[in-house]
Amino acid sequence: MALRDEHVTLAHGGGGKAMRDLIDEVFTSVFQPESREDQARLMDDALFEPGARLAFTTDSFVVDPVEFPGGDIGKIAVCGTVNDLAVGGATPLWLSAAFIIEEGTEIALLRRIVASMQAEAERAGVKIVTGDTKVVGRGSADRVFITTSGVGVIPPGCDLRADAVQPGDVAIVNGVLGDHGATILAARGDMALSTDIQSDCAGLGHLMAAVAKACPTLRCARDATRGGLASALNEIAEDAQVAIEIEEARLPLRAEVKGMCELLGLDPLYLANEGTLVLFVAEQDAEAALAAMKSLPEGAGATIIGNARASGPGPRVTMRTLFGGARIVDMLVGEQLPRIC
Amino acid sequence: MALRDEHVTLAHGGGGKAMRDLIDEVFTSVFQPESREDQARLMDDALFEPGARLAFTTDSFVVDPVEFPGGDIGKIAVCGTVNDLAVGGATPLWLSAAFIIEEGTEIALLRRIVASMQAEAERAGVKIVTGDTKVVGRGSADRVFITTSGVGVIPPGCDLRADAVQPGDVAIVNGVLGDHGATILAARGDMALSTDIQSDCAGLGHLMAAVAKACPTLRCARDATRGGLASALNEIAEDAQVAIEIEEARLPLRAEVKGMCELLGLDPLYLANEGTLVLFVAEQDAEAALAAMKSLPEGAGATIIGNARASGPGPRVTMRTLFGGARIVDMLVGEQLPRIC
Repeated sequence: MALRDEHVTLAHGGGGKAMRDLIDEVFTSVFQPESREDQARLMDDALFEPGARLAFTTDSFVVDPVEFPGGDIGKIAVCGTVNDLAVGGATPLWLSAAFIIEEGTEIALLRRIVASMQAEAERAGVKIVTGDTKVVGRGSADRVFITTSGVGVIPPGCDLRADAVQPGDVAIVNGVLGDHGATILAARGDMALSTDIQSDCAGLGHLMAAVAKACPTLRCARDATRGGLASALNEIAEDAQVAIEIEEARLPLRAEVKGMCELLGLDPLYLANEGTLVLFVAEQDAEAALAAMKSLPEGAGATIIGNARASGPGPRVTMRTLFGGARIVDMLVGEQLPRIC
Repeated sequence: MALRDEHVTLAHGGGGKAMRDLIDEVFTSVFQPESREDQARLMDDALFEPGARLAFTTDSFVVDPVEFPGGDIGKIAVCGTVNDLAVGGATPLWLSAAFIIEEGTEIALLRRIVASMQAEAERAGVKIVTGDTKVVGRGSADRVFITTSGVGVIPPGCDLRADAVQPGDVAIVNGVLGDHGATILAARGDMALSTDIQSDCAGLGHLMAAVAKACPTLRCARDATRGGLASALNEIAEDAQVAIEIEEARLPLRAEVKGMCELLGLDPLYLANEGTLVLFVAEQDAEAALAAMKSLPEGAGATIIGNARASGPGPRVTMRTLFGGARIVDMLVGEQLPRIC
């Protein structure tokens, strides 16, 4: 039965027949959960391995605009949560998806978002097993917000932690920096910028699995989302009580992103990424990590960007600049661009 | 270190230092997750029992107003997700909490909500282990929305499902109907109603555990939230392919709620509840179920309201009225009150 409505109304959030129709037709027809019960019931053999642990994470997504070159809010809602599981060493298994929808939102937009989520979930090898929809009046939300939570399994013996990073460890990123931030900035339209940049939005579960297999000394990984690479490095340095030095010459940046940053006075180290992570391995495993990453499309641009050092009295994270000087790379202070993810 | 700000700014969502300060001081100081990693890492012996399954559920909460007699958005965000696990037969273990916060929201309000969540989590015996905060500009959300997801363990052999309900089974509710819906209606202030009604908002995990232990024939349970008891009964009847008859004389209703419904032309069967469930057991277990429920405060008002019957050509759910007639109890059509939970 086709929904007669083209736009979401408050009745679609009321708990009655209209809501059931919306959920059946737009959501469960695509996600195909195993039952209509209010909770998914799950089991995976990997959970039974002695020493295995469960990983559990959540993120809300409020990106504006909801559709942008290279992705949409649904794609980043799946990738973001898959990546939060993956960088913890977990194999992502199951996702939940909760939608807060503004009255008046086009049903066709919801269908596109849901299709995008399902396609990304299939790529990542996860199932969207349970969900929820709420509808709020016009002006009480901005089209659609999505919260995904994820459950995965951390295999026995795997314990990736920022505080495991040691002086001498090498920092590697899987690809170019700042594409997501630059894409959203351009897509907002405020700047009258026209670029071909696309969001880097991608699931990193397969990449993390490949590196973990190839590198016994993989210490930790972080996806460099809000706050960019700079904030991820600062968090790791603080947790590990080390200093980190990166080299500007080694930072992988697209010419368009570099140009946009120069034009607008932005620093690409603080631009958000949705498919870029930084990881630390012992020096002897660096080549193995690079090879494992480069074996996959999402790691094709993998490169060493710097290393960890003994912590001194100075700043935690520094960058050797193209001109041979050293620059402090601090946590993001203030806020670069609202609603980036 | 005390946050200098009294209100949330966009910088608190930016991924940098302000966000870290907000999270550290308002959220993790209360929830005390085990690490600052982006994913919780968990294990519970119950998961290892052969035949055990994992239950996973999610709900967004957008209730307006965010504070009301008997609770607040944080309390229902914890209770709602705990209850969705519990009615599936699971022991609730871990929750995630994701906050979408409107710029300008008072930090003091967030602190009250977080304290309320922690208190409710402790009562329910669950831990809030991971979370997220996003900030959107003024007018892009309404103060604060919370999405909680929950993970629990379904013990071996437990398989509560609506389609297990059989003709002859007895329907039992744990207490009065409609208090939450009536409370929110009065709290909105549009009606100039003054009442002493409080939301029934409560966690039902301990209650479900007691009934499951006492009743080998417990078939299924549903919490009667949005759409009220009427919608819960219709969903069960449809899934089980049975008819359900309830008796108006047996419905537990507070005089104030009954009065408000008469005054406003509302039907208490469709009013939302946040601490009321309906469950089905075989007739021979009905007394045991009632006794188990009455042993706990949240089940003190437990009562049989009707039973399941063979499905005929007529309507699925009917009510024998006080005057001896029969009335069709349909799914909620349209929408009674937006943003009830």
